[in-house]
Amino acid sequence: MKNETPLFSSEFHGVFPYLVSPVDTAGEVMDGVLGDLVEHLIAQGVHGLTPLGSTGEFAYLTWAQRRRMVEVVLEANAGRVPVVAGVASTATADAVQQAQAFEQMGVDGILAIMQSYFPIPASGVVDYFTQIAQSVTCPIVIYTNPRFQGGDLTPAIVSQLAQVPTIRYLKDASTNTGRLLTILNRVGDNMRIFSASAHIPLAVMLIGGVGWMAGPACLIPMQSVQLYELAKAEKWGEGLALQKKLWRINEVFAKYSLAACVKAGLTLQGFDVGDPLPPQQALSADGIAEVRDVLVELEVLA
Amino acid sequence: MKNETPLFSSEFHGVFPYLVSPVDTAGEVMDGVLGDLVEHLIAQGVHGLTPLGSTGEFAYLTWAQRRRMVEVVLEANAGRVPVVAGVASTATADAVQQAQAFEQMGVDGILAIMQSYFPIPASGVVDYFTQIAQSVTCPIVIYTNPRFQGGDLTPAIVSQLAQVPTIRYLKDASTNTGRLLTILNRVGDNMRIFSASAHIPLAVMLIGGVGWMAGPACLIPMQSVQLYELAKAEKWGEGLALQKKLWRINEVFAKYSLAACVKAGLTLQGFDVGDPLPPQQALSADGIAEVRDVLVELEVLA
Amino acid sequence: MKNETPLFSSEFHGVFPYLVSPVDTAGEVMDGVLGDLVEHLIAQGVHGLTPLGSTGEFAYLTWAQRRRMVEVVLEANAGRVPVVAGVASTATADAVQQAQAFEQMGVDGILAIMQSYFPIPASGVVDYFTQIAQSVTCPIVIYTNPRFQGGDLTPAIVSQLAQVPTIRYLKDASTNTGRLLTILNRVGDNMRIFSASAHIPLAVMLIGGVGWMAGPACLIPMQSVQLYELAKAEKWGEGLALQKKLWRINEVFAKYSLAACVKAGLTLQGFDVGDPLPPQQALSADGIAEVRDVLVELEVLA
Amino acid sequence: MKNETPLFSSEFHGVFPYLVSPVDTAGEVMDGVLGDLVEHLIAQGVHGLTPLGSTGEFAYLTWAQRRRMVEVVLEANAGRVPVVAGVASTATADAVQQAQAFEQMGVDGILAIMQSYFPIPASGVVDYFTQIAQSVTCPIVIYTNPRFQGGDLTPAIVSQLAQVPTIRYLKDASTNTGRLLTILNRVGDNMRIFSASAHIPLAVMLIGGVGWMAGPACLIPMQSVQLYELAKAEKWGEGLALQKKLWRINEVFAKYSLAACVKAGLTLQGFDVGDPLPPQQALSADGIAEVRDVLVELEVLA
Repeated sequence: MKNETPLFSSEFHGVFPYLVSPVDTAGEVMDGVLGDLVEHLIAQGVHGLTPLGSTGEFAYLTWAQRRRMVEVVLEANAGRVPVVAGVASTATADAVQQAQAFEQMGVDGILAIMQSYFPIPASGVVDYFTQIAQSVTCPIVIYTNPRFQGGDLTPAIVSQLAQVPTIRYLKDASTNTGRLLTILNRVGDNMRIFSASAHIPLAVMLIGGVGWMAGPACLIPMQSVQLYELAKAEKWGEGLALQKKLWRINEVFAKYSLAACVKAGLTLQGFDVGDPLPPQQALSADGIAEVRDVLVELEVLA
Repeated sequence: MKNETPLFSSEFHGVFPYLVSPVDTAGEVMDGVLGDLVEHLIAQGVHGLTPLGSTGEFAYLTWAQRRRMVEVVLEANAGRVPVVAGVASTATADAVQQAQAFEQMGVDGILAIMQSYFPIPASGVVDYFTQIAQSVTCPIVIYTNPRFQGGDLTPAIVSQLAQVPTIRYLKDASTNTGRLLTILNRVGDNMRIFSASAHIPLAVMLIGGVGWMAGPACLIPMQSVQLYELAKAEKWGEGLALQKKLWRINEVFAKYSLAACVKAGLTLQGFDVGDPLPPQQALSADGIAEVRDVLVELEVLA
Repeated sequence: MKNETPLFSSEFHGVFPYLVSPVDTAGEVMDGVLGDLVEHLIAQGVHGLTPLGSTGEFAYLTWAQRRRMVEVVLEANAGRVPVVAGVASTATADAVQQAQAFEQMGVDGILAIMQSYFPIPASGVVDYFTQIAQSVTCPIVIYTNPRFQGGDLTPAIVSQLAQVPTIRYLKDASTNTGRLLTILNRVGDNMRIFSASAHIPLAVMLIGGVGWMAGPACLIPMQSVQLYELAKAEKWGEGLALQKKLWRINEVFAKYSLAACVKAGLTLQGFDVGDPLPPQQALSADGIAEVRDVLVELEVLA
Repeated sequence: MKNETPLFSSEFHGVFPYLVSPVDTAGEVMDGVLGDLVEHLIAQGVHGLTPLGSTGEFAYLTWAQRRRMVEVVLEANAGRVPVVAGVASTATADAVQQAQAFEQMGVDGILAIMQSYFPIPASGVVDYFTQIAQSVTCPIVIYTNPRFQGGDLTPAIVSQLAQVPTIRYLKDASTNTGRLLTILNRVGDNMRIFSASAHIPLAVMLIGGVGWMAGPACLIPMQSVQLYELAKAEKWGEGLALQKKLWRINEVFAKYSLAACVKAGLTLQGFDVGDPLPPQQALSADGIAEVRDVLVELEVLA
């Protein structure tokens, strides 16, 4: 076992919203609303913050914008909860530079993402994540989202990466929950699993998950924390009742473009985060109406 | 609500092994070993029997062979547990004839499967299953396995089919467990959900499933029943310990060809069910060794 | 070289329309219109006839219907052009029986098609086609349509099958024309290639193809023959002008469901072939209008 | 018609090799070998040069490296043939900046590539390419490679983009040659089509293509030019003989990773361009042996 610290204490756990990236039409990160969002989420009880995940549109931001996103989040957070920043690239060297820069800026962990163009063999994938991990000292969350990324982190690759001491967490955004059990059986205590919104978080907690990292948690932070607490307390019946109610937001999130959906929802809640970056399109009027419905139903919008 | 009978009693529930189809090289169903297998599974406590599922190689059997499979199973079962027989075709008319023939032979339910060649629009899919249901009086389990079937039963299609009075159950063999929650939220009490081996059965039970229909249950019937009982008793902690142990058989089943894998395992257990039908290939020596390992580990083989 | 007969004479070559299967609502093959269609196509100059291809809805017909289709076509043709009948199954034994029955009925060749449910390894695919070929004496056309069939005939598999003496032709309905050049380079004179409507027939003729087998040729038989003659005469410029004009029918065919599209077009031309078999749906009003437009544009409808 | 200049003269046409990007382990573009390669290709008769295509590993290079690539190529070329540089991004704003910088540096055209992460609706795709075109004055080649890029340029999207005056060319690296005929029929003289190595260049020339842009042309520049000349002279028979011989290099290129394959081939030819950038892996020994074989067979290696 790489780590004897008891689970649920010093380790990353619980609800980490994937922050949106509010950028104005001139390309500037909008500090004010981002700071307000950080304040709001912490007040609602979230356990950590993740800038530059998929919902954070890392794939559409320049390095200067990414850097500024992390800077503003770190400053607004002021050390209250762990900040795990997304590092994403197709090239190993670029990813390493991003990770080192973020660590120097003070992040508590790195969410490591591999974008791809050409198919990369397993040895190249392992090398990419290992190089990132070895270039910093903070814990690494490896992240796979086979819907958007060219490649995928198979159980065999994850098992190999679990041998790298600082690679401590996996966020899997596939929809295949059984794959998580396969991984849990293989990695033992070497790695913790976070759910994504494509899984049923309660089911992931049942099989041993330690929380979830997800865009929708920006919109329903308090309810997400409640669900986590119920799972942690093994109140599965109450948990299921809440989970069934909250599930509709995951459905909307999967149906529409992630960033467009969460940005629209936050705008409805009074956080003026703007539209997703082009060539992404803003959420359609129908989409906004559906997001509004769900938020009203969940009582996070009047 | 279409049915006020309390759950877990007169309704289909629990563990339904998908039976293999033992056919000799002359193309004859091997009655003896099939009867022995039925006897064994019932003795181990299974709640029902399903001939002619995917594992039963329906796709490789003639109508005469399918008919004989059901005949032998019904006779060997002698009314002890419900028999739900697979009806599968690309053509509506053919499926209707199969279903009527099986009902006349005395099955307790129909597992309705849609094979496809050309893409079929949602209206055609709904029509296919509705026609089958309306041609018989027994309850219908609709079955989707997007890995092998050209089409898929989306939540929208399932919701529509849940309005047909005798379409009472869904077996979903996708790996997307979240989709089951979406369906459960939509169909309410109009439809019950069975897990397949591609899901974590315990997780499906947590969210409201009523059992599982699966090939691997041929090999570990007693353990499958134990797992079901733990879930039913809401002993989730104990259930998880057993589930984690049993999971490896699902992994092997997914890795190798279904029928080849279960037939090889049964042969190791002394049921001489033969090889899968050509052009399927028998399990490789490596595959047999891995199946043996798993069965020994699970203590169902010495 | 397996065959020294000069190309374009005794060998299959030219335009083989894939016949539709006119079946009435009682499930009976409509002999009259089928005979009329055969008469019409031969009068227009087609080089052969193919009942029970994809367009012929083999996947939706019972064995009795398939048998009757071939019987009627053979009778109407009365030996004027070669008849190459489709044999399709998931199971080797079933395919062999179909092929033997058709040969006994008097077909000139077999179009061998492999349907699939479980993934079948290359050795099983080779075995399936080889068994069919060895069960009859007539020439075999192997057919792949990766859009609809679970498997595919890779260049490696085709090269192996080209060693079987009676496997003389390939109809490839992928859209990958480069793959045909790979195959042509590998099989030399052991195998001839037919285009499908998913390729540009003229381009396939340029690289060495001997004709095309396709559903749209039912609707534009004379023009298809003209195009073939231009290619054979190496009049590439004139050929291209005609090909560009005819291409729109291939586009419509790819856009709509094959059988629905060709059946609708033939109905417009006065052949009352009915609708495709359920659960397929008849062509929509918009689809019919578009087919009508194309046929008018090509001057095969007033 | 947007352009009345006769085809094959002032317009882009013929063979444009996709240059590899030689980068040393310190991340520096290797000017010397890149200049030598440019000199060699021009001496062999190529009609243009394309730095930063797929083979040029644009997806693995920093902006500084991309900029330097273009700078060195422009300098070495010294105005002898048109240089069309690749602009690739997920974000519209970033792509526009790249295009403007390259135009200012003196490129003759832009090869516009859209990378993607989230699915982008057609309106966003059209907007991306239109914004790039409107930000510069030079001609634009739009490029689609559905194997590697998340999205694809459908005929409908291409037709819309053909209305933008400076979007004059398409390079389509799908394997679907029929799609090119659909596009040619729709765009008329508004757009010219280049083949990629996934098509049969001779077949694309037959239907109206004006040349090909491809990685393998780095390895067989003279033969590629010969093939182009034969097609231009409508010597289809001779062209086919050469095309069949050259095709094997396209097969190798498709089988192995593009950049690894071309870099290995150039190294064998004495251009020390190094390995592809991590996490890509260098070509395996088997791969190198196969590339060597092909180059020897084509007499471009002793």
